[in-house]
Amino acid sequence: MEEIGKRKAKRVLIQLPDGLKMEGPRLATIVEKAGALAIVSADPCYGACDLAVQDAESLDVDLIVHYGHSRIVQQERVPTIYVEARAKVSVKEAVKKALPFLKDWKSIGLTTTVQHVDSLDEARNMLLKAGKSVMIGDKGRLKQAGQVTGCDYSNAKAISDAVEAFLFIGGGNFHAIGIALTTTKPTVVADPYEKRAYAVNDEVRRLLKQRWASISEAKKAKEFGALIGLKIGQKRFEEAVMIKEKLEKNGRNVTLLAIREITPEALMQFLNIDAFVNTACPRISLDDASRFRKPILTVNEVLVALDELSWEELCRRGWFENST
Amino acid sequence: MEEIGKRKAKRVLIQLPDGLKMEGPRLATIVEKAGALAIVSADPCYGACDLAVQDAESLDVDLIVHYGHSRIVQQERVPTIYVEARAKVSVKEAVKKALPFLKDWKSIGLTTTVQHVDSLDEARNMLLKAGKSVMIGDKGRLKQAGQVTGCDYSNAKAISDAVEAFLFIGGGNFHAIGIALTTTKPTVVADPYEKRAYAVNDEVRRLLKQRWASISEAKKAKEFGALIGLKIGQKRFEEAVMIKEKLEKNGRNVTLLAIREITPEALMQFLNIDAFVNTACPRISLDDASRFRKPILTVNEVLVALDELSWEELCRRGWFENST
Repeated sequence: MEEIGKRKAKRVLIQLPDGLKMEGPRLATIVEKAGALAIVSADPCYGACDLAVQDAESLDVDLIVHYGHSRIVQQERVPTIYVEARAKVSVKEAVKKALPFLKDWKSIGLTTTVQHVDSLDEARNMLLKAGKSVMIGDKGRLKQAGQVTGCDYSNAKAISDAVEAFLFIGGGNFHAIGIALTTTKPTVVADPYEKRAYAVNDEVRRLLKQRWASISEAKKAKEFGALIGLKIGQKRFEEAVMIKEKLEKNGRNVTLLAIREITPEALMQFLNIDAFVNTACPRISLDDASRFRKPILTVNEVLVALDELSWEELCRRGWFENST
Repeated sequence: MEEIGKRKAKRVLIQLPDGLKMEGPRLATIVEKAGALAIVSADPCYGACDLAVQDAESLDVDLIVHYGHSRIVQQERVPTIYVEARAKVSVKEAVKKALPFLKDWKSIGLTTTVQHVDSLDEARNMLLKAGKSVMIGDKGRLKQAGQVTGCDYSNAKAISDAVEAFLFIGGGNFHAIGIALTTTKPTVVADPYEKRAYAVNDEVRRLLKQRWASISEAKKAKEFGALIGLKIGQKRFEEAVMIKEKLEKNGRNVTLLAIREITPEALMQFLNIDAFVNTACPRISLDDASRFRKPILTVNEVLVALDELSWEELCRRGWFENST
């Protein structure tokens, strides 16, 4: 309300990740009390890469309030406030349950998402009390020390050589899988919502097998589609053109496909395309592979399919450009 | 290829409706032979209201080639060529099968989609031979005489008082339902793809009952969401604000929701909202009601819920503003 008053905003676009969208009407009422017209973005939002700048321009909005993610897109088209939602749930029980999973290792790298950064100290103290040494990466690209996002594990990578295993504090296995893929270290989740802990390394092994199978299938493909993301933080036009040229030099046909939401239904329309290259969001290739009937490779995976990069080098680089 | 050469286009965005998307790679090859880089839009496209102007700007494209729909959006931001795909299928057998369904009426209004406009003469001659009088509306707003779109039945409305029934030439019951809703006249489909004919009036009666039920449910709703479409031809901002104010005067709370793809998954996120007003695409309210668990009313339907418009007047106006 203070910011809206200070900026004299007349029209405000509120953007929330899907898990928080139900708070939209309540937040809109607060914005309207501050004297501005509130519009809640109702399209899916999976990260700060999907900042609704285009929508804001189209709606003639003078302020975006983006909840739940910290900034990754640098833009000056529409003023934007980031409200990094913090979870109120205690991490104590989950971290306690994680300790047995970490028993074989002494030096632990500690990571979390922006929701739980305020609990990092408590988690570190519990690990120290249990006789561990603890490292928290702070490469400085993300706003918070120890923070990871769905595609940025630079804070894990930065300390990977110095630790034996990682503990990730947060809900679900999504981020922990990213840490394990990037660092190849044993990775344990302490999930404060479900109050349980588990290792993700079996899951990562399955995922790697799946990636290998997709790469093998793509080797035989003739017709490729190269996906160009339309979300502001996912657009890598030149990379798509580069991989198109590379594949065409290798005798494949490549169609550039511009896309906002990469869904099985959308890709299914292209009956004659055998395999896709995804320059937009790497998580869609990695986590949703089973939902798509055709291989969807990352750019580096295409290089492996073309024998320009070894599988070992791919594993060393990891699947997230942002983490190198 | 000629147009690309003439305009010296360097980057071309090809947009196709979902049924034609599989032609994308072939068309891209043709565009590239003409010397331009081709990008195929892979997001869903259900009409010319969804012209990819924003995507074209974001991709720095200098020409859009839009297939399968005729122009409805007037814009000068990105040069656009419309390629009105014509179906090659013969309408003869379907029209022949439609004749028995038209036996009780003498004067017939003839309508079709842009795909079959070249077959209108043949259909008219068959009707004349069968002893009917035939009218084809030409209100001049759509490009072709007799043409209807998913939300524009002005060419049917224009002749409605002068005919006893309508014959629609085209695939599926989608457009015929629109004609019957707009004109309240008996409407028969001659489907050249399935080579069959049928009346849609039972279906329309079911749909009207469903609409009545949705309006009744919305009368009891406290929390509303007013959808503002983000597609270029679906954005009716002022209408959404108007209906928000009207509902709030009647003691309801209304949140403005900006949305590109109106899906059950997206609306489901707003747990506390009881009913939606849809200012974007009326077909989503009418045809997909059963996919959504909550009422999604058109603006005129909200006026009925608020007792500001009678059900009879709603039926007289029809559900498509473009058709009045």
